Amino acid sequence: MCDPELTGFSVNQMTVKQLSLPELVKGLVELGVPGIGLWREPVAEYGLAAAARLIRDAGLSVTSLCRGGFFTAIDPAERAAALADNRSAIDEAAELATDTLVLVSGGLPPGSRDLVGARERIADALAELAPYAAERGVRLAIEPLHPMYAADRCVVSTLAQALDLAERFPAEQVGIVVDTYHLWWDDTVAAGIARAGAGDRIHCFQFADWTTPLPAGVLTGRGQLGDGAVDFRWFRREVESAGYAGPVEVEIFNDGMWARDGREVLAETVARYREHTL
Amino acid sequence: MCDPELTGFSVNQMTVKQLSLPELVKGLVELGVPGIGLWREPVAEYGLAAAARLIRDAGLSVTSLCRGGFFTAIDPAERAAALADNRSAIDEAAELATDTLVLVSGGLPPGSRDLVGARERIADALAELAPYAAERGVRLAIEPLHPMYAADRCVVSTLAQALDLAERFPAEQVGIVVDTYHLWWDDTVAAGIARAGAGDRIHCFQFADWTTPLPAGVLTGRGQLGDGAVDFRWFRREVESAGYAGPVEVEIFNDGMWARDGREVLAETVARYREHTL
Repeated sequence: MCDPELTGFSVNQMTVKQLSLPELVKGLVELGVPGIGLWREPVAEYGLAAAARLIRDAGLSVTSLCRGGFFTAIDPAERAAALADNRSAIDEAAELATDTLVLVSGGLPPGSRDLVGARERIADALAELAPYAAERGVRLAIEPLHPMYAADRCVVSTLAQALDLAERFPAEQVGIVVDTYHLWWDDTVAAGIARAGAGDRIHCFQFADWTTPLPAGVLTGRGQLGDGAVDFRWFRREVESAGYAGPVEVEIFNDGMWARDGREVLAETVARYREHTL
Repeated sequence: MCDPELTGFSVNQMTVKQLSLPELVKGLVELGVPGIGLWREPVAEYGLAAAARLIRDAGLSVTSLCRGGFFTAIDPAERAAALADNRSAIDEAAELATDTLVLVSGGLPPGSRDLVGARERIADALAELAPYAAERGVRLAIEPLHPMYAADRCVVSTLAQALDLAERFPAEQVGIVVDTYHLWWDDTVAAGIARAGAGDRIHCFQFADWTTPLPAGVLTGRGQLGDGAVDFRWFRREVESAGYAGPVEVEIFNDGMWARDGREVLAETVARYREHTL
């Protein structure tokens, strides 16, 4: 099945994490979705080589692997462990035949209030990892996370900050992620997207909607497309105008969606993608 | 009691909302705190004229009144009601002898995804209200709220956005609020503070700490000073370097603090202010 409307469309496996990898792959093929976004933990659980084979045999394209990062530790042993883990993530991305490893850069170390220092340690880690990744055909994609995650998850909060970091390195080695959930509120995001596109830095483009009220911990309240505040057509237009012609991934973390039948959620996600983003 | 360290210090009544206004006034006087920040609802409950007299007789200075705003409605009747309510808020500020009305500008109307339009309606409302406020000696202080409130509470998410709005009006009529809770994560905030100070736009300076995990709804999880990620001395230095010599208000919404003895929380707040901000 080949539906031109779904060209470049990809569903990240976290959106329907209640499905096993074979169930998800089968569902995507049946629905005519050509791409899949992966996370390291469920891939490892299924087996890296087996996952790569399953996806390749189904003819799906792996649009990204989540996630590397967590680069902000000060302790040398923690820092070395993070770098080693990121080298493994790069190797896994290569084996899964994706060219994009998404990075969640890390928050403030316990007790620290030094945002500037944390951001510099991210740059140092990128300098060590980018050549290693490039040798394996993998690009590092810095994901700016919503500012509500700045303390405990990612001190890179805006597209401009992500680009300030990425632009220290060659564009084919380090780029950024445009994720509507994290960036929709920012009145400078159009300028950031244009800047990223002009420099060939858009390595990944992800959709999730913003809905309220936020749940405790604010991790699992992303909205199904169309349920919230995000204007997806606006984002698509800006990103495509900036020269991006790559895949679009839907990546939603939502307790309510995870509690439902996964195949039903998958079909709904494809329908919402058509209704709200094309 | 006059403690030079506490010159300009103010406690917003929401920080210890379990205290009645007379209890709070008495506590502040005993602790040597010269300022108080007020909210309209508890003031109305106590009685506007009585509150003004109580505070004046105690020799306290009212550093701000919260809050006006909610300017983003599209419906003409809702919009007229919001403007009328803001005129009342301005009158109340004048009667309470504060020169600063804090504005929470409003989120997206139900079903709307138009951030640009919502921000323009805020500017339109300011144009109607600023002269009315100026005639009564009241300045309108636009408070940029953390981006996690952009959909349902305030589409003004950064200091730069607040200044873009404020600078359309005379500085003695419309300015901004620097609140550490909302702005701490932003790597452009130093530039924003300098810009605001150079234009005499800093009308209010508020302290609360950023702690995680955030509670459901993300409204009542602000941290006591010193418990979180905010570098208060850094903020104070930037704001004072920008030419601001006005009061500093502590305004914390925290379920845990509200559940404790209010006088104890008040004393703790003064101690934390000395320990973490001077």
